[in-house]
Amino acid sequence: MADAGPVFWRGSGRLADGREIIYFDESPGAGRAQVRDERELGTADAAPGAPDGLRWDPLAGEWVMYAAQRQDRPYRPAGPGCPLCPSRPGQLTEIPASGYDVVVFQNRYPALGPPGRCEVVCFTSDHEASFATLSERRARTVFEAWADRSRELGDRPGVEHVYCFENRGEEIGVTLHHPHGQVYAFPFLPPRTRRLATRAREHRSRSGSNLFDEVVRAELDDGRRIVVGNEHWVAFVPQFARWPFEIMIFPHARVTGLNAVGEAARDAFGPVYLDVLRRLDALFGVPMPYIAAWQQAPAEPEFGLHLHVIGMRRAPGKLKYQAGTETGAGAWSNDVPPEDAAKLLREAAGG
Amino acid sequence: MADAGPVFWRGSGRLADGREIIYFDESPGAGRAQVRDERELGTADAAPGAPDGLRWDPLAGEWVMYAAQRQDRPYRPAGPGCPLCPSRPGQLTEIPASGYDVVVFQNRYPALGPPGRCEVVCFTSDHEASFATLSERRARTVFEAWADRSRELGDRPGVEHVYCFENRGEEIGVTLHHPHGQVYAFPFLPPRTRRLATRAREHRSRSGSNLFDEVVRAELDDGRRIVVGNEHWVAFVPQFARWPFEIMIFPHARVTGLNAVGEAARDAFGPVYLDVLRRLDALFGVPMPYIAAWQQAPAEPEFGLHLHVIGMRRAPGKLKYQAGTETGAGAWSNDVPPEDAAKLLREAAGG
Repeated sequence: MADAGPVFWRGSGRLADGREIIYFDESPGAGRAQVRDERELGTADAAPGAPDGLRWDPLAGEWVMYAAQRQDRPYRPAGPGCPLCPSRPGQLTEIPASGYDVVVFQNRYPALGPPGRCEVVCFTSDHEASFATLSERRARTVFEAWADRSRELGDRPGVEHVYCFENRGEEIGVTLHHPHGQVYAFPFLPPRTRRLATRAREHRSRSGSNLFDEVVRAELDDGRRIVVGNEHWVAFVPQFARWPFEIMIFPHARVTGLNAVGEAARDAFGPVYLDVLRRLDALFGVPMPYIAAWQQAPAEPEFGLHLHVIGMRRAPGKLKYQAGTETGAGAWSNDVPPEDAAKLLREAAGG
Repeated sequence: MADAGPVFWRGSGRLADGREIIYFDESPGAGRAQVRDERELGTADAAPGAPDGLRWDPLAGEWVMYAAQRQDRPYRPAGPGCPLCPSRPGQLTEIPASGYDVVVFQNRYPALGPPGRCEVVCFTSDHEASFATLSERRARTVFEAWADRSRELGDRPGVEHVYCFENRGEEIGVTLHHPHGQVYAFPFLPPRTRRLATRAREHRSRSGSNLFDEVVRAELDDGRRIVVGNEHWVAFVPQFARWPFEIMIFPHARVTGLNAVGEAARDAFGPVYLDVLRRLDALFGVPMPYIAAWQQAPAEPEFGLHLHVIGMRRAPGKLKYQAGTETGAGAWSNDVPPEDAAKLLREAAGG
């Protein structure tokens, strides 16, 4: 693909209230510069910055984000009123274009104020699609959007971490059905990322080896929890999974962030990830509610980039909840042995 | 009440499969020793101990619990089949008695195997009640059950932490409607408790003062987030709340665990807690799904016992979910400013 010229054409503009919008087109000539958002939106309703928008929890030693204006965000609008569909005459949406491939724009209801930033990533203009139904080509374009945002936002002053993720399913609170993910540029290192980075540094001092490399090596050696893989990526249910169908997707060659992934590995990502998502949906014959989140830390030499996929259904009609032990004590209980979960996923019609 | 003789009568026995059951009666003479469980249950279906029942997550540095047999636990049985109601002729339940006040027994589907232990705490024999509808007297009896289990289980070899909590509401996965809580005797210190204890120790070394005392003092001084209180307890929405309606209930005199709470404070707990729960239910006119969890660490001099109440509804018909930022990154976003939450709770018909 590297020989075939650019894999995407990037164009950007501004929405009526000043928010940035960036198109990642799979063919040239869309003329994004000429398009105007003709809505009357007033000024963007920015989330407050610290101290009002961020507060420090002295008990846990963590930042908490506040964004009261998010209470007013759209709640499950029906298809025709979807703000993530392309605009049509008489139906102006967040995307002032009659079509798009992948598009990123600043969230109208951000959870973070400056210097943080929240963006929405639309994976396709097809309202009824899902990430699992995208083409490999499209998965590659989405990968480029994640890498672009990680680099561009990560370079901004005050941004400590770029977090690319997707929430999928009404069952976990998704308010818009249209296939989309999000990017949060955090003004702090979020607790889980910080913890993994600290653990990896401690592991290096103690043992002289890399923690992520050891985890991946142990899974490859054992084999029972591998779901799928190819020359560049491996997807497994970790031996210590907290969730009924939790999957980690690692590149074979460890890197610290999305932008360090090479061309061939970028091409090879889609086939593995799409396979995983299709298996999750095939498992119970109903769409699997999931969280998919890139864990990266480009500035931390010991970090191991991976996509963390958390499938939240434990059986047909039964969700895994975070209740008293998980939410109150931080201790996870899992009813599905990771070996069984991996076997079920291998047997599910996927690919 | 201390002058009025014992506040409860304790009796214990064994269920048909050997599990322990302990009654906390509010009047004497129930004759618990004579009662037999006449079901044929075989041997208790114990959860496996480590290494199968507990696995170490090297990335996060935390234990994860596994209990595959829990997949078969009862899922929302209707009233007549409720295993937590008293037994009737032809309807033998987990409680081999025709009535009870508060009763504790080993969970038939435990998340923890030895040396850990999981118990169920029934707050009342009334299937249609809730903690919020209990009497002050009953709240005191439940307090005694929590203290009893904290002491007895906490003294066992291999038990590192006793965790008393309640999950309330189908919305957060509660599978039995009958009013009940749980006690987990953990063979490890759970992550949140460990983190709070560590933070409090660090705060003492750094500042010479106690972290919990400072948090409570700051709330009392500010006042905007206080919900209710009396001579012995104060309930507030913390300045750094993660959840729409999150409340911490602290005793004015800091103690490290439930058993260090004095008689007068034990009497005074019910009035405050019942008031808080009634306000949560009154807030939107529908039962509030919540988690209520005692945080304690009797062996940690810097710890501050408190009840952590997490109300999960952010608006009528809308739950707060733990999705990509919370579950994937560990970073919380809250749409309801803590000052507003406290004001709404103060204004809600309660008490």
